[in-house]
Order: sequence, then structure tokens, then C-alpha cells
Amino acid sequence: MTSRTRVRRLPEKAITDRDSLNAVLDAALVAHVAVVEDGQPFVLPMACARDGDRLLLHGSTGSRLMRLLATGTPTCVTVTLLDGLVYARSAFESSMNYRSAMILGSCVALTGDDALEGLRLLTEHLLPRRWSTLRAPTRKELAATSVLALPLTEWSVKISDGPPDDDPGDLDAPVWAGVVPLSMVAGDPVDAPDLRGTHDPGPLLDGLGLRSVR
Amino acid sequence: MTSRTRVRRLPEKAITDRDSLNAVLDAALVAHVAVVEDGQPFVLPMACARDGDRLLLHGSTGSRLMRLLATGTPTCVTVTLLDGLVYARSAFESSMNYRSAMILGSCVALTGDDALEGLRLLTEHLLPRRWSTLRAPTRKELAATSVLALPLTEWSVKISDGPPDDDPGDLDAPVWAGVVPLSMVAGDPVDAPDLRGTHDPGPLLDGLGLRSVR
Repeated sequence: MTSRTRVRRLPEKAITDRDSLNAVLDAALVAHVAVVEDGQPFVLPMACARDGDRLLLHGSTGSRLMRLLATGTPTCVTVTLLDGLVYARSAFESSMNYRSAMILGSCVALTGDDALEGLRLLTEHLLPRRWSTLRAPTRKELAATSVLALPLTEWSVKISDGPPDDDPGDLDAPVWAGVVPLSMVAGDPVDAPDLRGTHDPGPLLDGLGLRSVR
Repeated sequence: MTSRTRVRRLPEKAITDRDSLNAVLDAALVAHVAVVEDGQPFVLPMACARDGDRLLLHGSTGSRLMRLLATGTPTCVTVTLLDGLVYARSAFESSMNYRSAMILGSCVALTGDDALEGLRLLTEHLLPRRWSTLRAPTRKELAATSVLALPLTEWSVKISDGPPDDDPGDLDAPVWAGVVPLSMVAGDPVDAPDLRGTHDPGPLLDGLGLRSVR
């Protein structure tokens, strides 16, 4: 943690242990990645996966954002997991429960076998158990893909959970109070229209870390 | 749309009609909001709600981010809704389905009745039907809350949906291909431990626009 990543608002929600950072990143499928051009910030969603002490990102080598990131321009990568709606007895105390991580730093571009291994880790994170069932990427595909790594050195984690924290004077308000949990779930797999042969997608869902709701 | 918001990557996924922007923003609970300080971008998650031709944000007047945004510093607000995991026959074509909106511009701080109305709209968006059941915010609460509006003038929307788009040469690969839909659902309401009296939270969920999974 540095002065740039110290949580100033509601510091009691700040978490400083590395395991918590890992847990938030490992539960995320998408990160919001920022770059600055001529003083203007741009934020785009990107798939992400943690590889030990770094966060992996990937995209097209034709992407302006990826090209900028590959130069080591300052970036901020933020991951947010929404966990609930908090119904307090006042609008002021009403809020959301969430887990959020913010990482500052500069990306480095991976090359050769490092880039291929990065792609494998990204694919395994997003689509568990899938990589080994697919053909290897072609040279052309690898050339079209930029794989970046952001070191996990300067970061903060903020977690908001638990029930509403109402003013004692509001406790008799004639309303329900509590939390409505939110979660991301996986629905019924939808076959590709051009699917050939018979394949069972079921086992794919087991590794997802998402509840399956059919 | 300007040259800054033209979608360069996969432009066939770019959507330029205003109704689509509204639909993405209206389905979002959280936006990722960026500011720049000394060349370093910072991205934080914030609750958001659309009010006609502007996007409302709110936070503590004590927040560094809110104070910076209130000065009209250039910002980028990005909203992303994850809709599915796309299992293609190659890692290269594997991807995610999503709806995403990016807005560039400068916020203006709302004051007086405008700020109060902004808070009402934010609360109604996040916790539908709740505002009218709660006491009015106090003067002190209003003074502690910063309400900002970002005009919806410079923006882009990108939507990725549908099945995997595999290379014809991959169609006979011996794997399942298709989409696993993802969605955010609301779980069983959890009473606050200090709940007094009997209140039914059920009707709150009807307005949420989220599937309820118990």
C-alpha cells in the first residue's frame, strides 16, 4: 500500500492482506482497465486472470488500448464484485455490499512461451478445463494477440458486507431492513447452431465457481 | 459519437442508437468511474442511475474522487454487463458476451432541490419503491452527500452476443461449442439482526429487474 492506494473513505472497509486481494481477483471474470491519453481517461472492460504476483490481461494487438498498455503507460485496473443491496431505514445509510480491488502500475507485454502460458492461464480462469480440449493456437493467432502482465505491487482492497448500519433513532422506522444478496449465476448452456456431433457441456460448468441455475 | 468514442476494435459490435445506451445504463447498478491525478488514472466503482440525458453518481463529500469530479475534471464512466461465456472450438475465438457503455465528459455537481431529486432517482434505481417508505434525508445527510451529473453527449456502446464465430476449419473439433449465459440474480432477503416488528421484504424484489432465485 502507498499513499496513492490508501483507502481514505470508510477506511474500516479497507483490507490489507494479500490473500484478500487474491480472493477478489480470482473471483473476477472482468476487470476495468484505464489509460490516459491527452489528459483524458479511458476505461474498458477486459477479461483478467491472476498469475501469482501479477494480473494477466489480453486483447488484440490491433487495439489502441492494448498498444498503449504495452508501452508501460500508467494504468489502473479495478475489479468489482457486487454482493448485495443493503436496505437501511434511511436513504443515507442504504448502500451496496461489494468486494473491490484497485491495482496501480504499468503492464509489461509477454512474448513467446510466456505469452502462450499467459493465454493458457487466462483461458483456464475464464473457461475452466477447456484449454486441454482445444487445438493449440496458431502462429497467426498468437501474433494477433497481446498478453500483458500487471505486477501486484501497489493495490488496495475494499470490502463492504454485513447488515445496514442504521442510526439508532431510525430503528423503529416501519420498514423492512436487511440485505438482498446478489450473485452471478450460470444458466442452461446454449448449443452453437453449427454444433456437430454429440457433446455434453455439463462438466464445463462444474469448474466455473458460479452457481448453476437452470 | 466523436473520434474519441468511435469503436475501433470489432466495429461491427458498435451500437450507435441512443435507446441502446439507455438500455445498458438502465440495467446497470454500478459504473466504473475514472479520474486522472498527476498522469495516473484511478478507477472506482460507484452506484449510478440515468436521469434522461445524464448519468447520476453520488458519494461522500469527503471523498477525494467526488471532490475531483465536482471540479469538472475529465472523466470516463464505463458500465459493463456480463451476459455469457462463449465456448468456441479454439481458444482464439473463445470470448464473453457482454453489453458495455463508455461515457466521456465532465460532471457537474447538483445542489439544493436538484441534488435531492438526484438522490431520489438514484435510490429508486438501486432500491425500487423504497424512497417513499423512508424518512426524508436530513440537512446534515444532504450536506455530507455529493450528487453529480454526467451529460450523455460523448459515448459509445458495444454489444457482444450470439454464438461462437468459429473458423470453418475448426467446426469438426470434438468439443462442445456454445454459450453459457451469465446473469445477476437476487437471493433470499436477509433480515437485519436489529429488525423490529414484522415486515415483508417480498414486494421490494418485484421492482428490481433481477431474477429472484431462492
